[in-house]
Amino acid sequence: MAEASYASASQTDVLIIGAGPSGLMTAYWMARCGVRARIIDKKSTKVFTGQADGLRVRTLEIFDSIGFQHRVQHEGHVAVEANFWAPGPDGTLIRQGPFCSSKVNESPFHNMLLSQGRIERFILDSIKQYSNLEVERGVIAESFEYDEIVKDDQNAYPITLKLRTLSEDEVTPSNNSGEGRSHSVPDKLKDSDLHPDDLDDLIQDSKSRQTKTEIVKAKYLIGCDGAHSWTRKQVDIPLEGGVIDIIPITDFPDIRRLGTVTNASGTILVIPRERRLVRLYVPVQVVDVAKNGNARFNRSSITPEMIKERVQAILKPYTFDYKVCEWWTAYQIGQRIAPTFAKDDRIFLAGDAVHTHSPKVGLGMNMSMQDGFNVGWKVALVAAGVASPAILSTYNAERHHLAEMLLDFDRHLSGLFTDNKPSKGIPEGGSDKTENMIKVLETFEDFADGLKAFYGASPLVCKFVNEDKLNPGHHLVPGERFPPVKLRKQADGNTQWTTRIFESDGRFRLVILAGDVRNEMQKHRVDTLSRFLSGQLKEKASPLSRYNAIPGRFKSPIDVVTAHSASWKETEFFDFPEILRDLDATLGWGYDKIWCDDACIWDRDCDGKGYEKWGVDRMRGLMLVVRPDQYIGWVGELEHMDEMTRYLDGALIKVVTEE
Amino acid sequence: MAEASYASASQTDVLIIGAGPSGLMTAYWMARCGVRARIIDKKSTKVFTGQADGLRVRTLEIFDSIGFQHRVQHEGHVAVEANFWAPGPDGTLIRQGPFCSSKVNESPFHNMLLSQGRIERFILDSIKQYSNLEVERGVIAESFEYDEIVKDDQNAYPITLKLRTLSEDEVTPSNNSGEGRSHSVPDKLKDSDLHPDDLDDLIQDSKSRQTKTEIVKAKYLIGCDGAHSWTRKQVDIPLEGGVIDIIPITDFPDIRRLGTVTNASGTILVIPRERRLVRLYVPVQVVDVAKNGNARFNRSSITPEMIKERVQAILKPYTFDYKVCEWWTAYQIGQRIAPTFAKDDRIFLAGDAVHTHSPKVGLGMNMSMQDGFNVGWKVALVAAGVASPAILSTYNAERHHLAEMLLDFDRHLSGLFTDNKPSKGIPEGGSDKTENMIKVLETFEDFADGLKAFYGASPLVCKFVNEDKLNPGHHLVPGERFPPVKLRKQADGNTQWTTRIFESDGRFRLVILAGDVRNEMQKHRVDTLSRFLSGQLKEKASPLSRYNAIPGRFKSPIDVVTAHSASWKETEFFDFPEILRDLDATLGWGYDKIWCDDACIWDRDCDGKGYEKWGVDRMRGLMLVVRPDQYIGWVGELEHMDEMTRYLDGALIKVVTEE
Repeated sequence: MAEASYASASQTDVLIIGAGPSGLMTAYWMARCGVRARIIDKKSTKVFTGQADGLRVRTLEIFDSIGFQHRVQHEGHVAVEANFWAPGPDGTLIRQGPFCSSKVNESPFHNMLLSQGRIERFILDSIKQYSNLEVERGVIAESFEYDEIVKDDQNAYPITLKLRTLSEDEVTPSNNSGEGRSHSVPDKLKDSDLHPDDLDDLIQDSKSRQTKTEIVKAKYLIGCDGAHSWTRKQVDIPLEGGVIDIIPITDFPDIRRLGTVTNASGTILVIPRERRLVRLYVPVQVVDVAKNGNARFNRSSITPEMIKERVQAILKPYTFDYKVCEWWTAYQIGQRIAPTFAKDDRIFLAGDAVHTHSPKVGLGMNMSMQDGFNVGWKVALVAAGVASPAILSTYNAERHHLAEMLLDFDRHLSGLFTDNKPSKGIPEGGSDKTENMIKVLETFEDFADGLKAFYGASPLVCKFVNEDKLNPGHHLVPGERFPPVKLRKQADGNTQWTTRIFESDGRFRLVILAGDVRNEMQKHRVDTLSRFLSGQLKEKASPLSRYNAIPGRFKSPIDVVTAHSASWKETEFFDFPEILRDLDATLGWGYDKIWCDDACIWDRDCDGKGYEKWGVDRMRGLMLVVRPDQYIGWVGELEHMDEMTRYLDGALIKVVTEE
Repeated sequence: MAEASYASASQTDVLIIGAGPSGLMTAYWMARCGVRARIIDKKSTKVFTGQADGLRVRTLEIFDSIGFQHRVQHEGHVAVEANFWAPGPDGTLIRQGPFCSSKVNESPFHNMLLSQGRIERFILDSIKQYSNLEVERGVIAESFEYDEIVKDDQNAYPITLKLRTLSEDEVTPSNNSGEGRSHSVPDKLKDSDLHPDDLDDLIQDSKSRQTKTEIVKAKYLIGCDGAHSWTRKQVDIPLEGGVIDIIPITDFPDIRRLGTVTNASGTILVIPRERRLVRLYVPVQVVDVAKNGNARFNRSSITPEMIKERVQAILKPYTFDYKVCEWWTAYQIGQRIAPTFAKDDRIFLAGDAVHTHSPKVGLGMNMSMQDGFNVGWKVALVAAGVASPAILSTYNAERHHLAEMLLDFDRHLSGLFTDNKPSKGIPEGGSDKTENMIKVLETFEDFADGLKAFYGASPLVCKFVNEDKLNPGHHLVPGERFPPVKLRKQADGNTQWTTRIFESDGRFRLVILAGDVRNEMQKHRVDTLSRFLSGQLKEKASPLSRYNAIPGRFKSPIDVVTAHSASWKETEFFDFPEILRDLDATLGWGYDKIWCDDACIWDRDCDGKGYEKWGVDRMRGLMLVVRPDQYIGWVGELEHMDEMTRYLDGALIKVVTEE
């Protein structure tokens, strides 16, 4: 047994393997909720260049809830529109576009492009803000034991790992093996290239490392160690092509616009980026199959020169060249999905470790981070004794399904890049492809941008309770994200998006859409609900003091937020019942607890159309529980207090009162 | 002579004394332009709490041009509206408001409140991004010699200073002497209170320091060492009252709204802030004059307890208390202005060192930073050999006048706080005050927010050339700031405010408002101008290669930016002449050089109304030179090439060509 042989092992509640985007997202929750955790990564440094770059709106909303979206917006590049270039009737390339998403007002944010290296930086900074948790770099797990017998004992540490710090020679730098910078970066780029906040990490790396081995026992293990080692073994995955981040020198008109260019030589994907960079996904294998009669490549057969020549061929008659290449690599299609993402609700896998696909759909980093975000808060709250272990199974239920959709999307889209049909005439091939491309993008848009999640019924998603009694027509669907709206703070008139108001601090939010409180009837409804929350209603215990806290983090896992629909000027903060104003003996009133859905003359985004967007009656309002990850868990009328408590009872652990 | 006695002296081009907001602003320019400079400060650390907090829109625009406004916006509190509380007919306090500025759409930003400590952090980070210039803390200038004889020799170092590093016992911590935290900060505040990026500086401070003395010779000296040491000697300045940053516990409805509360006991100013903080300016002396018959206080006679009691008296019948006090101090009116801000264009004074006033107008930090911003780029460009020393005299001309306006504003406003007329009836006194307050604020609004600068004619401001030929009615006034507009990048459709496009990198901007380039006549005008800029027009040398560069920073001190008025979709980046597209052999085309004043469906701020805001004809356009600080230097038609060159010749130094 593991127990006996490793008597001297150290313990941690949660061990995270892999400090890429999904691992860091998971680690964020541990830091934020004060959970005892460790995170290791085999590489000696974080990523600085290359890798993923696509950021979908739902991911940006998550960043906002953590508190660093303003940094992404400052550095990143917006890509809302797309252009598809294909040969016209006379065989020369013609622009078809721009095609713009019809959903540009569904989120405070728009799809963006920014290097994975910067995203890792931002999450690391957020982790530092809340705890001393640091990534242990150049460390691998060498052996693993799992004691299934104690899996149901919440106090047991069923997982035993042997961790080893790698020697100087063993560590894997982030950018190597079949990838790299192909040209030296000239001096003039250095200023803009160099982020001072990343520089410190590079210096850190140069410190000499000490090789050591250690035994660690953990309650939960979360594997976020990426696809690389795993897919490397899958020798039958063909290489698809090359991807390259360059500063282009070209007269192609749309090199700074998202889109594709298709001709007889294949299709390339053009992705404009921050700091003059453009990323190109370029088919290399497809064409060379015919030439060599050999569908297999090894990584080293693809070179930046080869990629450049292919781009030049496809962009003809436009010219194309570059002097600065920040990063490049060969990539594979490799569509894979693990049959399950979890074992016994003790071991979880997230991100590329469980699903891989073509990088071209611009979803990989998003799916991985959202995996990590999803499993992170659940494991953190369970480890902290706040949430019931019953919620852990929702991770696989919610995310596996989405990974399947991702692969479906990828199959549809990748086909259009690789299935080149060179036998067919060029003009038809080109426009066919464009039409199909648009059709696929439109079909999968909600899914891809993360506007829809399709989370099914579970202890965390109450789908049917009281559905018949609800106002018909509202758009607040349990299992979907809370539709973001910019609201006005009653106390001081400042405006904020709900994505930021519902900060990712580990708490569930009881959101009271209080309606028009100027109306006496409606005010009475709100007062009654408030008496319930204050514990003043007979035979109904308040949910606010009912569940376990995390000392030093929050007093209750439920945060009450009110958003009324009356005019800002005709309402006062002190009009609302005390319980909604969250008095603290030291910090005073919770001035950020009462919000108003009214227009603000100095902020166009705050337009007073929140209730409309939510489809909620401005007089009667509604009540809902939003999960710590901003997905709706439960919806009901202001009177549905028992039903709400029942939902919360299913997710949270009640305080044990001594009798 | 200094020359002889200090043969072993080290040299620096620019020495800045004082690392408060104005000194740091000046230092930013040295860092950005690669000028050899040093900056010293007598205190051992930067400011962390308290001090100034008001940020006016023009200051925020400057932050945007440097690149950190997104951080201010993330952390700060917006204060656009104000409420004035005064006794109503029955003698009880009544709210009069909210009064909202009518100018909320004149800038991308709105007046905000955020601690000076955070602002210093952001400027320090920007300095670090561009150079190794570091603040030498705990260092004072002990002696000063100035060799007037060589003042006109640009290669001479007429200034000699003796610098001394203070010992541990001598250094002045930032927050002490008659101010401080009055209560210990409870644990629960610490998380939000603690900025990890500031923490490093605190740790830095604990390193042991070595006392040493050093002789430094400088070409230019910029004194930004604040009012403190200077005003301390002015024993006849009466204390006005107390200022305190607290987390309030009160039932006063507008504690989170900017405004005043007036009753028979006096007037307090309420300033809501970041992190639950509220700042209160409280008259203490005024009332106690009557009680003691003594108009003089020493600092130590004012205590937080005294301030609290005064607030409680004025806010009656509302309750007021607090548990957390982050900072407090006594403050003085001390309206002073130095007769001149400069000597021989070699020594400059900026900020509180040359003008002091009541802190309540919320302008001090703004004026100081704008002083530093103004003198900084001028000295930097002259020291770098790019600009003519003739521009240096514009510093005093431009800023002294504004300091006088500041004192005028302060006198008007402060009078309303201190002149209490307790003999008059309460109701009249209250409403009179409110009316006067609003009148003063309205009168000075443009000045206070920095929307108008009133800079007079000078080598940097060409007021009259060709004014008669200009389109009548345009709002682009030399000597005023370029009115900010959000534009769309032609190449990639991304949107940006001109405050960010015109980055503070030390270059003048030739802004070509190219009009509607779909029109053949207009296109011809733009082509002719472009041929001039390319040096292809006979007998007209292009200004682009005419002036000195700063190696490693910029090739030309003139950056060409085009903003046309045609439809974004009907125009192509490559439609514009090559010279406007700024080709670089390594970095390719300057995709960020061509902008479009057209609406963007996914960004409401980009509304295509720029030309309208500027008052410029959408067909014919206009041409202007914007100074490195975003003030307009020169305006003319596209044909006024000679006039433009003449303006630039007056400010910049021509390249010496070998014959």
